[in-house]
Amino acid sequence: MVHKVTIVGGGSWGSALSVIVGESVERKKHLFDTSVKLWLLREEVNGEDLAELINRQHENVKYLPGIQLPKNIIASSDIALCVGDADILIMAVPQQFLAKTCENIVGKIKPTAIAVTTIKGIEVDEKGKMCVSSVIIQKILNIPVAALNGANIAPEVAEKHFCEATIGVQREQDGQLLKQVFNIPTFHVNVVRDLQTVEYCGALKNVVACAAGLVDGLKFGTNTKSAVIRIGFLEMINFIKQFVGEPSMDTFHESCGIADLIATCFSGRNRKVCEAFVNGGRTIEELEKELLGGQKLQGPYTAAQIYVALERRGLVDKYPLITTVHKICSQQWEPKMLIEILCSQK
Amino acid sequence: MVHKVTIVGGGSWGSALSVIVGESVERKKHLFDTSVKLWLLREEVNGEDLAELINRQHENVKYLPGIQLPKNIIASSDIALCVGDADILIMAVPQQFLAKTCENIVGKIKPTAIAVTTIKGIEVDEKGKMCVSSVIIQKILNIPVAALNGANIAPEVAEKHFCEATIGVQREQDGQLLKQVFNIPTFHVNVVRDLQTVEYCGALKNVVACAAGLVDGLKFGTNTKSAVIRIGFLEMINFIKQFVGEPSMDTFHESCGIADLIATCFSGRNRKVCEAFVNGGRTIEELEKELLGGQKLQGPYTAAQIYVALERRGLVDKYPLITTVHKICSQQWEPKMLIEILCSQK
Repeated sequence: MVHKVTIVGGGSWGSALSVIVGESVERKKHLFDTSVKLWLLREEVNGEDLAELINRQHENVKYLPGIQLPKNIIASSDIALCVGDADILIMAVPQQFLAKTCENIVGKIKPTAIAVTTIKGIEVDEKGKMCVSSVIIQKILNIPVAALNGANIAPEVAEKHFCEATIGVQREQDGQLLKQVFNIPTFHVNVVRDLQTVEYCGALKNVVACAAGLVDGLKFGTNTKSAVIRIGFLEMINFIKQFVGEPSMDTFHESCGIADLIATCFSGRNRKVCEAFVNGGRTIEELEKELLGGQKLQGPYTAAQIYVALERRGLVDKYPLITTVHKICSQQWEPKMLIEILCSQK
Repeated sequence: MVHKVTIVGGGSWGSALSVIVGESVERKKHLFDTSVKLWLLREEVNGEDLAELINRQHENVKYLPGIQLPKNIIASSDIALCVGDADILIMAVPQQFLAKTCENIVGKIKPTAIAVTTIKGIEVDEKGKMCVSSVIIQKILNIPVAALNGANIAPEVAEKHFCEATIGVQREQDGQLLKQVFNIPTFHVNVVRDLQTVEYCGALKNVVACAAGLVDGLKFGTNTKSAVIRIGFLEMINFIKQFVGEPSMDTFHESCGIADLIATCFSGRNRKVCEAFVNGGRTIEELEKELLGGQKLQGPYTAAQIYVALERRGLVDKYPLITTVHKICSQQWEPKMLIEILCSQK
């Protein structure tokens, strides 16, 4: 019996992933149904339904223009049709739509289905309890969840430049199958049994990337930026140890850890917006609208969420970099405070 | 009794360090003699002795032009005068001149002196025995040796942009004093009792930076480069475990580890030369002469040295990245083989 795969979310990231998954299942006909469904919100582009346009042109002209999607990717805005017979659900919607999307598909999926989340973000509720996407998915859908994360800037993934990714699983038996969903020569996947570390790294690295962008905006060089990345990396490790549970230290050396951090600090959108923020005159929200064309910025939001958790536990002093990113992005401190805080440590 | 500090080597790196050390001793008059000697080879610039020029203009016009050196840095080409009363010798000569320099000063130094090497490189002798600068210094001078290493691109250090560094010591008691030689608000030093890891990281990172430069030359993006840095980082860790001794894993998260690796892979000269190498027509040696203005390139040489050690122990397969850098830089393989090797792993 072959497994059916569906990608839930047809933005730039879901579409980039479809390039990898489309090739992967085609290479492994003994394991997978070679047709992969791609669910996306109904919308029109130049008077035509986007899903129909994708199926005709094999290109997501709105969210991933210029990239040929594999012919075995079948786009649809019919959620029941997309998820109903799927054995593996790859979740790639923006974080703010995740709960609603899960509520739309609950009851429509196979009870044996498993989910892989590719969504990065942390929410902290009023009681200080933290929540990542796998928790939301599991709570609403009540199925096993894994997480994919790595040094995966979407356009480069879509162009099949060599890269790596990490899948964190809860259950040993899901690992090898999920690896096969994605693993191709240009996209290498390692599996670790450390779901939470994989997910939290994906969210926390965006905060560090904000600091890296501030360094760039302040016109400091590679030494300062490397120091900021290192200090941020240690704060990520400590945060996960202190708030999440016992991580395997090896997970931080996987693609989801140090490699994703490096990629995001040199090429991600958090870096870009925070660099522009230093140059002044506009808030993070204004720059987000101006520079990102509708994509959401996770770093400042995640920093604010974490700051709440740190304050509640009296741990602000232990996380100077995360704290400083929050204070600067929320305009409580000037950007140059980042350097002052760094120089004043110890 | 205050300690006297001498910097042995007045190239760009020794001169950049003098900016830090000059400020540091000035801030700590209770610990250090505020006059710091800087030894350099006798040479003339525009008909004037370089040491005299430095002492008059407080600028090393030949090797670090445009940077004001502290007034308490006293340059001289008289080696006996420079090292004779020094309690702390900071070694900053190019690796190929280290043994000769040590032979020149043996017998002229205080028996209680200690050395800090800032020289990065590995030599492998005919029997496959590896040797780093601290070993050479200790063998010839027979004094305790520590090593300074970190994300320290010389011009940025000289401009006092915030950065970090690591000192690896053999003897606990040297750590705090040596930290004080360098530690100022813009140059943060951590001490670890793991001399060898600090030194080997400094040499091995140049090999990984060659791979990063090849990725840039091949026009691959951040995902591929981050993957190469990650894979290289793991090969560095494994190499040190297998060939050097039991490292503390924390040392790899110090500035001498991951931060220096990142800085070198994005801004170092090994990266630059290997990027140009891909674009063809010239050997590494030709590019070294053309692009580096007399500075030596360590990465390809270190890769060749390590390859000998790997072959001897039958371990070439375990280090695909180091091996590939050696094969490409020595023109046995085409640059694009790097990507093929990456894609074919596992």
